[in-house]
Amino acid sequence: MKPVGPIPAGFETLGGELAIAGHTASELVERAGDTPLFVYSAAMIRDRVASLRKAIPERLAIHYAVKANPYPPVLEVMHELVDGFDIASGGELAIAATTGISGSTISFAGPGKRDRELAAAIRAGVTINLESENEATRALALADSAGVTPRLAIRVNPEFELKGSGMKMGGGAKPFGVDAARVPALARRIIGSGAEWRGFHIFAGSQALDPSAIAETQAQSLELAAHLAEESGAPLPACNLGGGFGIPYFAGDRELDIAAIGHALSERMNNLPQAIADTQFCIELGRWLVGEAGIYLTRIVDRKESHGETFLVTDGGLHHQLAASGNFGTVIRRNYPVAIASRYGQPAEEVASIVGCLCTPLDRLADSAELPRAEVGDLVAVFCAGAYGATASPSAFLGQGPAIEMLV
Amino acid sequence: MKPVGPIPAGFETLGGELAIAGHTASELVERAGDTPLFVYSAAMIRDRVASLRKAIPERLAIHYAVKANPYPPVLEVMHELVDGFDIASGGELAIAATTGISGSTISFAGPGKRDRELAAAIRAGVTINLESENEATRALALADSAGVTPRLAIRVNPEFELKGSGMKMGGGAKPFGVDAARVPALARRIIGSGAEWRGFHIFAGSQALDPSAIAETQAQSLELAAHLAEESGAPLPACNLGGGFGIPYFAGDRELDIAAIGHALSERMNNLPQAIADTQFCIELGRWLVGEAGIYLTRIVDRKESHGETFLVTDGGLHHQLAASGNFGTVIRRNYPVAIASRYGQPAEEVASIVGCLCTPLDRLADSAELPRAEVGDLVAVFCAGAYGATASPSAFLGQGPAIEMLV
Repeated sequence: MKPVGPIPAGFETLGGELAIAGHTASELVERAGDTPLFVYSAAMIRDRVASLRKAIPERLAIHYAVKANPYPPVLEVMHELVDGFDIASGGELAIAATTGISGSTISFAGPGKRDRELAAAIRAGVTINLESENEATRALALADSAGVTPRLAIRVNPEFELKGSGMKMGGGAKPFGVDAARVPALARRIIGSGAEWRGFHIFAGSQALDPSAIAETQAQSLELAAHLAEESGAPLPACNLGGGFGIPYFAGDRELDIAAIGHALSERMNNLPQAIADTQFCIELGRWLVGEAGIYLTRIVDRKESHGETFLVTDGGLHHQLAASGNFGTVIRRNYPVAIASRYGQPAEEVASIVGCLCTPLDRLADSAELPRAEVGDLVAVFCAGAYGATASPSAFLGQGPAIEMLV
Repeated sequence: MKPVGPIPAGFETLGGELAIAGHTASELVERAGDTPLFVYSAAMIRDRVASLRKAIPERLAIHYAVKANPYPPVLEVMHELVDGFDIASGGELAIAATTGISGSTISFAGPGKRDRELAAAIRAGVTINLESENEATRALALADSAGVTPRLAIRVNPEFELKGSGMKMGGGAKPFGVDAARVPALARRIIGSGAEWRGFHIFAGSQALDPSAIAETQAQSLELAAHLAEESGAPLPACNLGGGFGIPYFAGDRELDIAAIGHALSERMNNLPQAIADTQFCIELGRWLVGEAGIYLTRIVDRKESHGETFLVTDGGLHHQLAASGNFGTVIRRNYPVAIASRYGQPAEEVASIVGCLCTPLDRLADSAELPRAEVGDLVAVFCAGAYGATASPSAFLGQGPAIEMLV
C-alpha cells in the first residue's frame, strides 16, 4: 500500500458521490457528454484570491501566470479578480486578447521570445521582461520599426534560489534572465533609450511549501531590487517578486501558510529602502491560485487482476495528467490525491492501482492505493488538476486527443 | 562537458549544412516556412524496412506500431512497405483509415479500450488484442449487437521480461494482457464463441539494444505460444511476437545487431513445435523503423552567458521533444544526439547548453555539449526525432502549439 496525497479542502459528498460546486461527478460527466474531463471551480478560484488578498499587504498586486491554466473561462474569472497577467508566449497573448485582457496589464517572460512574439506584445502595450542584452536590442529595434514606445523590464537572474522549491529558477548559471551583476548596465541602457522603464522581474523558484523560505526569498528580492535600483540611477517603477507558492500534492505535504508569508512581507514593506519606497510591487502566481480548484474525472473501463494485484484501467491517463503520472520533473513517482468519485467518502476496502488507457507502463495515476472497491463504470477523480494538467500533457499521444474542460 | 548521443547513419553535409535526402536544413526550413520542424525521410524508412526484411526469416511479417509516428505521410510510406499495423486507440484507427489502410491488416492493443473504440474496430475487421476477460465479454457482446464476427486475439502477460529494455511490459503484475496461466481458458472461450480466433500477442518490452536479450525473449515467446496453443486445444493461427528493437540515443549506445536477431530466430523457426508449425508470425516495431529517420530542427533565438556558462536558446523545446529533454520515462537526463545543423561537420569550439523557449528549467535539449560556435539564427538539429516526438510531447504547453511536420 502506498499513500495518496491530501485531498484539498472544499470538496463535498453528495448522494454518495464527489461533488464540486454542488454538482456531483456523474452530473458533470453527463453535462460534458464524455470522459475524461477537467472540471474547474470558479468559486474555489474566487475564494483563493480573496484569501490571498486578506493575507498580503494592500500595496502588493496579484498577477496570474496564464501558463498554469490558460482555459479561456478560467482567464475570464481571473480577469475580474487579479491585477495583472503574466504570459509566456505569443500564443498566450492571443488567448488573453480574446478574453478581453488589456495588454497594459500583461507582462511577458520567456527565454526564447521570437521576433514576431516580441513585436505583437510591444504593439499590445505588454511589458516585456527582457531575458538578455540581445533581447533588449531586438525589442528596441522592433519597437523603433513599429514607431511604438516599448514597456521594458529586466528579468533578473538572482544569486539566491528559493529553498525547497520544486523548480529552481535562480542561483548560479541559468538560461533565465540577466545575471544580477549585469543588470544595472542594461537598465541604464534601457532608461537612456527612451523606452518606458518598467523595472525588474525576480523569479527564484516555484512550488515551495515552506513559508519561511518564501519569506526569505521575498526579503532577498526586495534587497536585490533596492540595490539594483540604486545602481541603475533611476527610481524603480515596478517590481515583480515572482511566485513560488506551492500546493500539497503528496502525503505529508502541508498547505502553505500564506498568513505567515503576508505578515513577514508586510513588515518588510513598512520599512522599504528609499530606492524602492514608491515601487509598485506584484507577485505572480499560477499553480497556487488554480491548482487545487480543478479535478480530472476519468471512467474505469476495466478492472483486472494480474499476479494478485488489482488494476483499475481508466479511459484517461498521462496524456492529460503527465505530472500526476510521475513523468514530469519528478525523480521518484508518488501518488497525487485520488479518489473513486462515484463512491466518495466510502471506506477503503482494497488496495488497487489506477492506470490509464495507454500501452505504456508509465501511464499510472495511482500506485497501490487504498480505495473503496470500484467497478467498471465508476468514476475516478485526480485532484490538484487545475494547474499544469491539460496543457502540460501530451494529449495527442497514442491518438487519444484532448480532454474536455469545464468551468462550474 | 557532457557527451551527446551518436548521430545516426545516413545524414550528410551539403554546403556546410546538415542535409537529409539531399535537402539542406535551411532549405527544409524555408520550404516549411517556419521553425520548429520535424523532418522525416522516406528513403531512410524504406532502407530500414529493406534491411529488416533481409535479416529476418521470410515467414515473419513486419507490423508497424502506429503510435511511434502517426503522421499520415509516414503511414502512407509504411503502407507500401509493411504487412500490417498495430494501433493503440480509436484515434489511431481513424488516422489509419484516412490513409487507406485496411482494417484486416490492423491489430488493436491497449488496456483501456472504450466500447465505442472496440465497436469501430470490430466493424472495420480489426484484430482485437484482448487485454482481459472483461474486455473479451465486451467485445463479444458488441460484435453480437453489430451482427459481425469479431477477429479476436489475446494479449498475453508473459512471466518473462525483455532484459535490458527501456520499458518492461511483461514479468509480474502488469496492467497489460492476461496472465499466461489464465490464457488457455480464455482462448477456449473465444474459440467456442464462434469468433474468428487470431491467436496471441506477446509483448515483453521495448527499446532494447542487446540482440541476445531480444533473441532470448523471442525464443521464450515461441515456447510460450506453443505451450498456450496446446493448452487452448486449437491450432494457433497467428502470433505477434512483439517488438523491443531499440535505437541508440545516448553516448555508448550501439546500433542493434538485427542480423544476429534474425539468425537466431531463423534457427528457431526451422524447428518449431507442432502446435505452432503453421502459425503466421509477425513482429511489431515502431521506434526502430522510424526513430532514426527523423530530425527536429529549431532555430537559435538567443545566445547568452550566465555565470560563465553559454546558453543557446531555441524556438523549440520539450513541448515537441519531451523525451529528449529527459522528462519522459528516464531517471537520469542524458543528451540525445544533437548538432548545429547550419554548421554541420565543423569542429567543436566551445561548450554550450541548448535550451528550449519555455520558462522552465526542465526545458533542456543538450546539457554542456561540445559544439561549433553558434549564433542567433543558426539551426539546431535533434536526431532520433522520428519516433515518440511530436505526438509524445505536450505541444500546447505555455501556449506554444505543435511543430510543423514534413516527409521528404
